[in-house]
Amino acid sequence: MNAPQLPPGSVGLVEAKKAAFADPLQLTSGAVLPQFEIAYETYGKLNAARSNAVLVCHALNASHHVAGSYADDPANIGWWDNLVGPGKPLDTNRFFVVGNNYIGSCFGSTGPASPNPATGKPWGADFPVVTVEDWVAAQARLADRLGIERFAALIGGSLGAMQALQWTLSFPQRVRHAVVIAATPRLSAQNIAFNEVARQAIMTDPDFHGGHYYDHGVVPRRGLRIARMIGHITYLSDDAMMEKFGRVLRGKSGPGFGFDIDFEIESYLRHQGDKFASYFDANTYLRITKALDYYDPAAEFGGDLAAALARARAAFLVISFTSDWRFASARSREIVKALLEARRIVSYIEVNATQGHDAFLMDDARYHGALRAYFENIAL
Amino acid sequence: MNAPQLPPGSVGLVEAKKAAFADPLQLTSGAVLPQFEIAYETYGKLNAARSNAVLVCHALNASHHVAGSYADDPANIGWWDNLVGPGKPLDTNRFFVVGNNYIGSCFGSTGPASPNPATGKPWGADFPVVTVEDWVAAQARLADRLGIERFAALIGGSLGAMQALQWTLSFPQRVRHAVVIAATPRLSAQNIAFNEVARQAIMTDPDFHGGHYYDHGVVPRRGLRIARMIGHITYLSDDAMMEKFGRVLRGKSGPGFGFDIDFEIESYLRHQGDKFASYFDANTYLRITKALDYYDPAAEFGGDLAAALARARAAFLVISFTSDWRFASARSREIVKALLEARRIVSYIEVNATQGHDAFLMDDARYHGALRAYFENIAL
Repeated sequence: MNAPQLPPGSVGLVEAKKAAFADPLQLTSGAVLPQFEIAYETYGKLNAARSNAVLVCHALNASHHVAGSYADDPANIGWWDNLVGPGKPLDTNRFFVVGNNYIGSCFGSTGPASPNPATGKPWGADFPVVTVEDWVAAQARLADRLGIERFAALIGGSLGAMQALQWTLSFPQRVRHAVVIAATPRLSAQNIAFNEVARQAIMTDPDFHGGHYYDHGVVPRRGLRIARMIGHITYLSDDAMMEKFGRVLRGKSGPGFGFDIDFEIESYLRHQGDKFASYFDANTYLRITKALDYYDPAAEFGGDLAAALARARAAFLVISFTSDWRFASARSREIVKALLEARRIVSYIEVNATQGHDAFLMDDARYHGALRAYFENIAL
Repeated sequence: MNAPQLPPGSVGLVEAKKAAFADPLQLTSGAVLPQFEIAYETYGKLNAARSNAVLVCHALNASHHVAGSYADDPANIGWWDNLVGPGKPLDTNRFFVVGNNYIGSCFGSTGPASPNPATGKPWGADFPVVTVEDWVAAQARLADRLGIERFAALIGGSLGAMQALQWTLSFPQRVRHAVVIAATPRLSAQNIAFNEVARQAIMTDPDFHGGHYYDHGVVPRRGLRIARMIGHITYLSDDAMMEKFGRVLRGKSGPGFGFDIDFEIESYLRHQGDKFASYFDANTYLRITKALDYYDPAAEFGGDLAAALARARAAFLVISFTSDWRFASARSREIVKALLEARRIVSYIEVNATQGHDAFLMDDARYHGALRAYFENIAL
């Protein structure tokens, strides 16, 4: 069971587990999910006081597989492996770290591709639209199952940060610290616009079949591909893209005067699009973008974010990145300002980084140094 | 022939004309366009010295119809009518203004939907990829036809600005002033990336038929729609979009928890996409974006823009807009810096504007004031 190929600091070989919940889950939309499963992984050990648990929340394209790798698939390294492990900033020698796949996703938790108990066939278009609040409610069931009354910390980037933030509002007493990275308290019109174009690309693909493509043995590959290409542009900064690809031509010395690939950036985007379309579920994509669009904790307080955040009891670490134009630093500062107005405890760091929104996944010394210091100071 | 419905300052009713050229046009790609037509309009009168002509160059979606309206279609006002007319900043009492539709477009000049003389059927996918340099070469033929040896000024925004800039390089002696607005000396990797997603949306639409959709009696409407939606996001600033649409729901008091329209911004984008797909030619879209991607006057000078611009003889006015993130002010400053290094005459204005890239079309007092002053100072 040892994994000699894994670098020092790795959690080693891990196992994905599933927790099944037979009690119905009442959703924000009014719909009810009659039963559901959550895929999860754990790293480190829950201490006797049960005070060292950290829940990691993922963004659009990741999963419960946060760290380590699998015996039967050693190349499949967890998506935040650079952060989580023994001696790493989120140190599994101290913390019991839980990765989870939110409901509606397509990596093991119940989602549109799962069988609908009413029909035995995939839910497809009939799977309800779930919200960030619903994800958090389902995650709370997982916490109950694992015997975690209160988390030492919630942590997430982007959409994951929304979950961490929402935990402090849905279950104020169950979160001691919230680490909110590359976040926004709500999408801007431009953010919604990008999501809508991606959805329209998927929904107008003739292979979408109104969301019941499973029954037709096809997937709306063209739409997913376009959706992912658009997404990728928003994850990277203009500068990072220029630095990485520039105007370098791919395998040619001059323009091709046709519609094959001319530039490296075109090759990169097509490749990312093709890869994504080969494994990601289109109905999941549609629902995740809607959850993003809808999320707005201030809405029920007439837009007053400070009033909305006043019920949080956690201490916060908010981190943003200078080159992130998807959820710019100004959006994080809205959260910080509201927390201060609500007299909550908050630290804020703006990291100088060229990578854009995706910087939250990077192994940056200042960024990881800040996270390490924050976690070291969490008393267990 | 009077047009009482037109506001004061309008050029009034105008007529679109066509100039046919029987001599082949050698294109940058190596291909030859055997013959072509250019659609154009003129406003004001060419003076006896033929020294007052101004050529207006358009961007992606506009045409030769720059000002005024048509007797048989009075609601069809020219796209830059707020700028061009008697007493307006580009004053047709002084200047002879020429609007033109570049070749490869779909508003009257020869393009992919035009008959291929070799077959009698639409060119479709066989229409060559034309470049900014090719557009300028074709426009020079139009200038010859109109008896214009030398333009008082070239003016254009965005892609139109690239044409104005290229005129000063292709025909240095034929341009006295170049007004280069919301420009870039070459696309960034991000700019190319957005173009590539739009092209992929069109080319993977099953109704594209490899560009020969005319033969099938269909158009790749889905792809065009997505392309336009993406484009629109890049034309507006995040702030302008937030100001105009915010997170306002359309005709509902709460989220719909489905995939119909929730937010106003979604309605706007779908509407823009549908409208565009009903009239714009997909093969034209593909070719214009390639012309944009390829344009890079510094390329043959090893990336040295100053060396490239040294052959210009025109005086320049460069204008950029603070909220333009498609072609940011930094891109215009690259042009200004290179012109200064090349010891050319250049004025530069950065206009404080919230509208993003589309600001070049707006009726902004400071912006139009600067243009008015510049044109007033052009000696005739």
